[in-house]
Amino acid sequence: MTNYDRFLSPVGRQLHESAIRRMGTVVARAKGDLVSFAPGYPDSTLFPWDELREITASLLTGADGSTLQYGPTRGYQPLLDALVGVLEARDIHVSADELIITSGSQQGIDLAARVLVSPGDVVLVELPTFTGGIAAFKNVQAELVGVKQQADGLDLDDLETVWQRERRADKTVKLLYIIPNFQNPTGMLLSLEKRHRLLEWAERRDILIVEDDPYGSLYFDDVASPAETRPLRADDVNGRVLYLSTFSKTLAPGFRVGWMAAPASLIERFDTAKQSTDLTSGILDQRIVYEAVRRGVVDRLAPRLRALYREKRDVMEQALRESLSDRLTWASPKGGFFVWATLPPGQTDTELLDRALEHGVVYVTGSAFFVDGSGHDTIRLSFSAPSPDRIIEGVSRLAAALSAVEMQHR
Amino acid sequence: MTNYDRFLSPVGRQLHESAIRRMGTVVARAKGDLVSFAPGYPDSTLFPWDELREITASLLTGADGSTLQYGPTRGYQPLLDALVGVLEARDIHVSADELIITSGSQQGIDLAARVLVSPGDVVLVELPTFTGGIAAFKNVQAELVGVKQQADGLDLDDLETVWQRERRADKTVKLLYIIPNFQNPTGMLLSLEKRHRLLEWAERRDILIVEDDPYGSLYFDDVASPAETRPLRADDVNGRVLYLSTFSKTLAPGFRVGWMAAPASLIERFDTAKQSTDLTSGILDQRIVYEAVRRGVVDRLAPRLRALYREKRDVMEQALRESLSDRLTWASPKGGFFVWATLPPGQTDTELLDRALEHGVVYVTGSAFFVDGSGHDTIRLSFSAPSPDRIIEGVSRLAAALSAVEMQHR
Repeated sequence: MTNYDRFLSPVGRQLHESAIRRMGTVVARAKGDLVSFAPGYPDSTLFPWDELREITASLLTGADGSTLQYGPTRGYQPLLDALVGVLEARDIHVSADELIITSGSQQGIDLAARVLVSPGDVVLVELPTFTGGIAAFKNVQAELVGVKQQADGLDLDDLETVWQRERRADKTVKLLYIIPNFQNPTGMLLSLEKRHRLLEWAERRDILIVEDDPYGSLYFDDVASPAETRPLRADDVNGRVLYLSTFSKTLAPGFRVGWMAAPASLIERFDTAKQSTDLTSGILDQRIVYEAVRRGVVDRLAPRLRALYREKRDVMEQALRESLSDRLTWASPKGGFFVWATLPPGQTDTELLDRALEHGVVYVTGSAFFVDGSGHDTIRLSFSAPSPDRIIEGVSRLAAALSAVEMQHR
Repeated sequence: MTNYDRFLSPVGRQLHESAIRRMGTVVARAKGDLVSFAPGYPDSTLFPWDELREITASLLTGADGSTLQYGPTRGYQPLLDALVGVLEARDIHVSADELIITSGSQQGIDLAARVLVSPGDVVLVELPTFTGGIAAFKNVQAELVGVKQQADGLDLDDLETVWQRERRADKTVKLLYIIPNFQNPTGMLLSLEKRHRLLEWAERRDILIVEDDPYGSLYFDDVASPAETRPLRADDVNGRVLYLSTFSKTLAPGFRVGWMAAPASLIERFDTAKQSTDLTSGILDQRIVYEAVRRGVVDRLAPRLRALYREKRDVMEQALRESLSDRLTWASPKGGFFVWATLPPGQTDTELLDRALEHGVVYVTGSAFFVDGSGHDTIRLSFSAPSPDRIIEGVSRLAAALSAVEMQHR
């Protein structure tokens, strides 16, 4: 028996792979010296190793058996209580029963997709958007429909146009998935004025918003202020916004500790859905993260992360200006992990990728982030993980790869 | 806006709660002194605290940044390679590409459900069976149909009868979910002879088997041998069996590290499905577990766990014999965590539970494990977590609760 196709569900038949995850596999398997601008990995040199080692030693004494026991699906209560404070600092006022710990914010997207989206429902997403969001919604058989972006984020006129069009086609438009802060992949920041108008629009059109905010605290203070990263959820008087965030970028992703803030009645359902998904998120992980919050490790780290990623952005932009300013165009990111670049006419993200791999550098193809088949003239370059020297080396290789494609086209 | 019902998917509308998880919440919220025979928690006094503290300190030096970074969805490669050896010891011969790490074996059930089960498909389960399995299959809108059990496990005649009936009703019967070793909740052991016949039956009827084996290594050597726990997967020549297991009972559940062994083409699909679910299981957790396997911590622990749980079984059975042998009946478990008891005529699991809580003891109602609405004359008593003294105290309280119900009925 080799063919299992007849056993597959409709979901199993049409599984949608995350392009970033696939790229991670390519990178992991690549031989030799490769500069990776592909996955949005945080810089592991800034993981607070000493503090985490100390915290973990203090947790694993055996004095409290529950440290390694099963725990509540909703999450470790002291961490939930601490998150109330973390969210207060972002001007989001919730009680602990409006929160759930998720196994990374990816699980938050998945829970929202499973509990809210019926097969055939339309989910609106940005053009382009995070591939993990695309995969989660596609894997509940949603129809993903893209909305254009402008320099200050989502194009609200296009949003209304798209909504009208889908409604005329008798589609159920249930929710909008959006990353307002230093968007993945574009690095864009949604303007405050648009945030207010978007909330009004969601109320008028009876739409829920899934707000994914992994990068909000990683603003670059030469060009952005914390006020500009104000979450949609902070002004959500009508309970329209499901707010997702994570400790993956601000502490370390290996813990898989994210969270969702949403109306209590929905949190109840996400809790029930999570029970049959993984029972509970990692217990030791939650306790380590809680201690890192409580002891101020996370707060002390934030300014250092902002400074480091800002410096890396500068290094990448400087290198791009020196060797590629005649061929690539990009908007300088105001925070986050990514430079989103447009290729010169005639070049495509996929053709360039083959050459780039030959030259020892890798990125994520821009088209992977578009749900409408477009974007082949774009690439996403993550500057977060490589060292400054490696960034410079990688850009130099990228320039050589671009030249190689040009030569070939002549 | 307070009513989100119109936003719910069919799945979100009909979410099925795990009775054990719900009971966990009841216990966590209960005030005062409560003996819990409810959730199947391992005894935390046998978690190898010193070794785990040492392992974790050795991992968190910062020498290897990937220790807290994102990792491959399939799992930490050295752990996958080590699992090949773990499975060899159970006479299961697989290569690493037939394995995936899951966030607890609960995620293995969930992935199997999502990838394989279409809404309306019949999933066959034991009467009674694990509530987490029930919830995962119900949450993909499966129809769960129960098959009777006998003293030596699944009733194969009833299995055929049920299959015939469902086929006559034009149902698609896709898979059987079964816990052959020290079943949850009954503690039963499927006989070797039945294991062989079950595999033949699955081939004849073109059914996949999801074999859930969390307790296999926890046999009690006064009444069971390791040979009797031989997994179905060990004799699965036709690729019918998806084998799930976990380190939750043999090391600690807080790590959320389980795994699935299945045909490589299905593992590919589970990998893709897992990408959009949680990207990856906890990275630090996987490394800790790997080190615990590599250093022999898991192997050295196993005989101590078997001895401890056997002793606790003896304590519980002795206490039950002394104060409840005239009212409860049960089969002595040959391994695992549970005594499955039948109540005297006229008593029900739910009525008794209210009294039991008043008397400071809690269990899981038997009916929660039945998909056909029956089982109200049964209760599941976990002896795994409480100390021997607390087991004796709990049984004494249970006897008092039973007497109180009897008094009331007079």
